[in-house]
Amino acid sequence: MKNRVDGFKTIPGSICAPRGFKAAAVSCDIKRLGTGKGSEKGRKDDLALIVSDVPAAVAGMFTTNQVCAAPVKVSARNAAGKFARAIVVNSGNANACTGTRGMADAEKMTELTAQSLDLEARDVLVCSTGRIGVPMPMGNLKRGIAAAARRLSGTRLSARQAAEAIMTSDTRRKEIAVEFDLGGARVRLGGICKGAGMIQPGMTPSGKRPAAGLHATMLAFLTTDAAIEPDFLKEALEKTVAQSFNCITVDGDMSTNDTVLILANGLAKNPPGGNLKTFQRALDFVALELAKMIVRDGEGVTRFITLHVHGARTAADAEAVARAVANSTLVKTSWFGGDPNWGRILCAMGYSNAKVDEAKIDVGYSRSGKNKITFAVRRGQPTRIALRTLGAIVSQPEFDLHIFLNAGRHDCVLYTSDLTEEYVEFNKGNLSDPKSLGG
Amino acid sequence: MKNRVDGFKTIPGSICAPRGFKAAAVSCDIKRLGTGKGSEKGRKDDLALIVSDVPAAVAGMFTTNQVCAAPVKVSARNAAGKFARAIVVNSGNANACTGTRGMADAEKMTELTAQSLDLEARDVLVCSTGRIGVPMPMGNLKRGIAAAARRLSGTRLSARQAAEAIMTSDTRRKEIAVEFDLGGARVRLGGICKGAGMIQPGMTPSGKRPAAGLHATMLAFLTTDAAIEPDFLKEALEKTVAQSFNCITVDGDMSTNDTVLILANGLAKNPPGGNLKTFQRALDFVALELAKMIVRDGEGVTRFITLHVHGARTAADAEAVARAVANSTLVKTSWFGGDPNWGRILCAMGYSNAKVDEAKIDVGYSRSGKNKITFAVRRGQPTRIALRTLGAIVSQPEFDLHIFLNAGRHDCVLYTSDLTEEYVEFNKGNLSDPKSLGG
Repeated sequence: MKNRVDGFKTIPGSICAPRGFKAAAVSCDIKRLGTGKGSEKGRKDDLALIVSDVPAAVAGMFTTNQVCAAPVKVSARNAAGKFARAIVVNSGNANACTGTRGMADAEKMTELTAQSLDLEARDVLVCSTGRIGVPMPMGNLKRGIAAAARRLSGTRLSARQAAEAIMTSDTRRKEIAVEFDLGGARVRLGGICKGAGMIQPGMTPSGKRPAAGLHATMLAFLTTDAAIEPDFLKEALEKTVAQSFNCITVDGDMSTNDTVLILANGLAKNPPGGNLKTFQRALDFVALELAKMIVRDGEGVTRFITLHVHGARTAADAEAVARAVANSTLVKTSWFGGDPNWGRILCAMGYSNAKVDEAKIDVGYSRSGKNKITFAVRRGQPTRIALRTLGAIVSQPEFDLHIFLNAGRHDCVLYTSDLTEEYVEFNKGNLSDPKSLGG
Repeated sequence: MKNRVDGFKTIPGSICAPRGFKAAAVSCDIKRLGTGKGSEKGRKDDLALIVSDVPAAVAGMFTTNQVCAAPVKVSARNAAGKFARAIVVNSGNANACTGTRGMADAEKMTELTAQSLDLEARDVLVCSTGRIGVPMPMGNLKRGIAAAARRLSGTRLSARQAAEAIMTSDTRRKEIAVEFDLGGARVRLGGICKGAGMIQPGMTPSGKRPAAGLHATMLAFLTTDAAIEPDFLKEALEKTVAQSFNCITVDGDMSTNDTVLILANGLAKNPPGGNLKTFQRALDFVALELAKMIVRDGEGVTRFITLHVHGARTAADAEAVARAVANSTLVKTSWFGGDPNWGRILCAMGYSNAKVDEAKIDVGYSRSGKNKITFAVRRGQPTRIALRTLGAIVSQPEFDLHIFLNAGRHDCVLYTSDLTEEYVEFNKGNLSDPKSLGG
């Protein structure tokens, strides 16, 4: 099962692949209580622990949604401490819009985890995903955390079970690990994540908005045995998220709970001052693979589109055009139909916040991973290409869309999906169905 | 069929109700050519003329989409001339993204209309709706315009036929007229419109964006026999559109072709300096009724929601919150399910561009037209109200949503809809179906 992709050898084991990391998953009936997406009749794991044997450098990226869940606030604060040992995660309840009680519950989750593992509460990060506005069932969590702590192990099975326990509306677990050389040491980096709906993350290290605001719950947890300074780790994670998780959109809704966390415990003993560019490249690779898995497994998704905007006047213009097109209901529904409806694409570009000049726009399509672009529009007007030629590309499960603004030298890439009847059916909710209040 | 609503007596005849207005509709096979939404197997009217017997003051509001159709440019220029006589409208082809040929075709449509009616081309306004990026079938239009000119009449039937000819994906025609007293004269004001999809108009008198950019093709044509100065008419229309057509959103996509035109021919002979506030009130009433018809007949729509944002710090914040909530895929799909999923509403507020403080937010629902608000959220946290009580309101065909930011004194009202499987099915397109490139 070893593969080499983009120069990195993927290995099994995801978050337990790096030395000194253990994981565990248990069910404590949060999902079964019918709280949030992923609620199921059967008993499913809904609590995961990820623990480093030794103190690890930590960095995090957190949703910039102003209505942000209690665990996000607690984890952002604890991540600022630069070192941590454990992450506790539950699915089934987002602990969002839960006020002061929610904050106390999130803190309590770190305390319970710390007690079970003989740590300080500040060494523990906490994440939640699921229903919004419902108090956390703390009795269940207490039992669950204690049970998970007893089950911790560094096996592939534990990693896999953790990847499954954090799922809500995801249809499959998402995990990856790579191995690479860093200053002569063999280093491993692994990750798991979940997504499915409410997916258009815009995360920053503090959870505060940048000057230009971006707009799932998506959660991603990365582990590595590389020895990395916390300040560098923070910087590296920020760069990585900017080109991976912050570049995906399923439905344009940014969640109250989006979080990416990384722990680097140094057990690979790579020498200081090693080639950190290689670490960055590995991190970029792992994060982008995980981010793409989220889009491919988005609620009701049948198509995966890599959207390239080329030649914008400013970076903000490039992103504005990409987000307008990727989040247009009409564009997304036409992709579902395999329809190269480029008129809707130009329309969305025209109402974006970017400055665009219709007479300069080129729009083309290419098969996934191929360089040949078949142009539908040149300088704002249709080419003579047959619709069925374009349709043959757009009806593939994966394709690339290229928009050339011919106005400057700024580019942007977003990874997005179609919008399907299944998405609507899944999200319309139903008062008799407890998952209806899913976040 | 005379009713009194909001102090205005509605009368039949829509655009032909005011003195001196005639209308006609014909089929010239633009829809049957399979170009754009509303294409049908059968022969349907797709060209309409609206003509005043005498020169009329004119004002228009035009899409601020930067990719704007040729007829929008021609009409904006001709409306700036302050007086006009006729409007020519086709459905089935939007004449958008058609470059210099599109501009020449739009001009030609005004010339052909002028020839048929013995007018100057500059007295004619032109609108198109339908497929984007396809050349106009000018031979068909030439025949159609000539045929329509021969059929002009001031009957209710003509008005109704014109209202039907401009439809694309609309399921029913939209028309209204009112009669009121202006300085002792009996004045009439009528209108027709079309909408259905690509509906989130943001129009200005010039088609240029205001400092703060807003975000269907929707077309609306208003006629009145009131004597109104062109400058006042322009100002009155701008105020009206700001609280009606620019306050609706079906799918968040602003069209390349959105246009509202009004002709005021003065034949009611109301004295100068009459009570223009009454005229403004009548115009506001007619425009808002037409705007609501567009939302109620939006593609696949099953619910009509009046969304009130109260107490924002700024007008821009009020609008940003309203648009984020009204255009959230997850909020709209939950409305389809009759699900009071207020967590998604708070989430959308949190990622809007407005500054919001979760701890101050109240959210409540009321039955359409009722004052009693049932609160789901107070100060950012769930009330003890039973979900089924809220669900009984949200599962109505029409209801009001109230969001209180408790941050200032600015309010905003938007009229919006749910997002349904039927919408997706309708818009997914299909290469074997000629309507698939509909604008």
